[in-house]
Amino acid sequence: MPPTTPPTGLPPMKDLTTENITENVHIVNSQCPSPRLKYLLHQIVSHLHEFCLETRLSTEEWSYGIKFLTEIGQISDDLRHEFILLSDTLGVSSLVDAINHPRQPPATEGTVLGPFHTHDAVDMSHGAVLHTDPDATPLFVLASIKDTAGNPIPDVKVDVWEGDSKGFYDVQNPNREGPDGRGVLRSDEDGLFWFQAIVPVPYPIPMDGPVGKMLKALGRHPNRPGHVHFMLDKPGWDLLITALYPRGDPYESSDPVFGVKESLVVDLSTVEDEEMAKKYGVKVGTKLLKHDFVLLSEEEARELRKKNAIEAMEKQGRKVVFHDDLPVPADDS
Amino acid sequence: MPPTTPPTGLPPMKDLTTENITENVHIVNSQCPSPRLKYLLHQIVSHLHEFCLETRLSTEEWSYGIKFLTEIGQISDDLRHEFILLSDTLGVSSLVDAINHPRQPPATEGTVLGPFHTHDAVDMSHGAVLHTDPDATPLFVLASIKDTAGNPIPDVKVDVWEGDSKGFYDVQNPNREGPDGRGVLRSDEDGLFWFQAIVPVPYPIPMDGPVGKMLKALGRHPNRPGHVHFMLDKPGWDLLITALYPRGDPYESSDPVFGVKESLVVDLSTVEDEEMAKKYGVKVGTKLLKHDFVLLSEEEARELRKKNAIEAMEKQGRKVVFHDDLPVPADDS
Repeated sequence: MPPTTPPTGLPPMKDLTTENITENVHIVNSQCPSPRLKYLLHQIVSHLHEFCLETRLSTEEWSYGIKFLTEIGQISDDLRHEFILLSDTLGVSSLVDAINHPRQPPATEGTVLGPFHTHDAVDMSHGAVLHTDPDATPLFVLASIKDTAGNPIPDVKVDVWEGDSKGFYDVQNPNREGPDGRGVLRSDEDGLFWFQAIVPVPYPIPMDGPVGKMLKALGRHPNRPGHVHFMLDKPGWDLLITALYPRGDPYESSDPVFGVKESLVVDLSTVEDEEMAKKYGVKVGTKLLKHDFVLLSEEEARELRKKNAIEAMEKQGRKVVFHDDLPVPADDS
Repeated sequence: MPPTTPPTGLPPMKDLTTENITENVHIVNSQCPSPRLKYLLHQIVSHLHEFCLETRLSTEEWSYGIKFLTEIGQISDDLRHEFILLSDTLGVSSLVDAINHPRQPPATEGTVLGPFHTHDAVDMSHGAVLHTDPDATPLFVLASIKDTAGNPIPDVKVDVWEGDSKGFYDVQNPNREGPDGRGVLRSDEDGLFWFQAIVPVPYPIPMDGPVGKMLKALGRHPNRPGHVHFMLDKPGWDLLITALYPRGDPYESSDPVFGVKESLVVDLSTVEDEEMAKKYGVKVGTKLLKHDFVLLSEEEARELRKKNAIEAMEKQGRKVVFHDDLPVPADDS
């Protein structure tokens, strides 16, 4: 097929040597109509080339990398997201969450969504039992949701999910008939919600694919410390996807997906108060997780993202303009 | 499944905040038993995180990237290597070749292998006709192979391949019955080889996959300038994979895979000498490509790679040790 698209208007590349490949890629990409995409590609290409140059990447290593990435794509399907697992195990997912949902005290920090959230969890009333697992240690969860000024936030949609006493989520059960270990509540007029969960246990991430091979080669273990997931959602407030990790888990300081943050490690106590036990319909002696969540408003989060973006650009010695709230260097606008 | 591998001996991560994710990933990866793999991962993680931080990568962009990479894996098969195409179009393949086969004058520069090399090309004698394409403009190729001191190198295996007058390689023909447009020669005792090819024409790289979508979004055209491929192989000499590009192609300065280098752009002349025409069995007036290839010895190439690796490490302020001829920082050894 003869070529049909002449490269009109393209600035000619430099004099084409082994040394100026990076610069030439930037020139060829410089006609990208989207300033944001142009900036992303400029940085991707710079980092990829810098990586090859500083490591003197061998042809065999490059070839291995191509095969590794191809296998990750090929093992992926609607239920298995191996590229997300790669992103998780390299700390990228956690970082992207932190960038997009920045928090400053007293706001609650977020963490990775993970692969086990579903959209079929049913509405439940306060105090409902999340799990039907008879082998589990019951855990009563009592939580509040407030704004940064300390005011309660009512009517927040609270999506909660966790694995069972063996470390499995319901979706990992091949005979799953419906949701188990998950539910949706709404905070009451005092910003409170409560439910009966189980004390979470550690569990391994999938190790039978290319990412598992990578972790083995790196000498890493696959076990996530036990946790309960929370997604707090209300229009006008920055979405909070987070999890709480009971203190003392053996994998607390080596989470393979870097989801644990110090502020999300919690101390469990015990329901010792007869009045409380009666009020919430739980037994005295039940394990208790009390926690105060603090949400940023959308406006607070947007301002914080913008401030951080300007700082990140200044660190590169660049002035910034925003396209759809995302930064690009001003000299490209 | 309860976890079975305790993280014995792993240095505990830092105090686990949004700010120290990168450092924590490095700590978790620090027990990798291979110093080279540890170094590669350290640099990959640093660059990935730096990219996210400096661009403030949005959750939607991250998600698009995951989908893009997954699709590239899924469209790939034994005949289609979309990840190699991605590497080619971002200049990575060309860079990796330059790193692994460094050249200094007068040695001939290399370039990308491309996806159209096969292993079924047949041996041919000097002067043989490479192509059976009746629509093509014949091109007589007469070449020498020398070392850096100017001595001829005999008995080099010379693998040559090129597309037809429409820009197609034989492997792109669904009715392909055998090799066409490719062959294998051996340089004679004077280091010479010659054959009858065709004047190459430009052709587009595959645009029907995710990489094609990327090029369109970047405003890039798919057309490679016309070229003839050469692979020169002899034990004791650094493998030379290269191509020659007749000057004046409209895509000469905007090659989508960054294979063109100034030293590989050649001027065609014409067979004007009756004696030459008779000697090589071609007509007076035939287009002529004369070229002198210069090979580095394996030893020269190894020394050059080592010198470049030491310089690249020093640029990072690091001392270097070598494992299997590949560099790692000395403080990790």
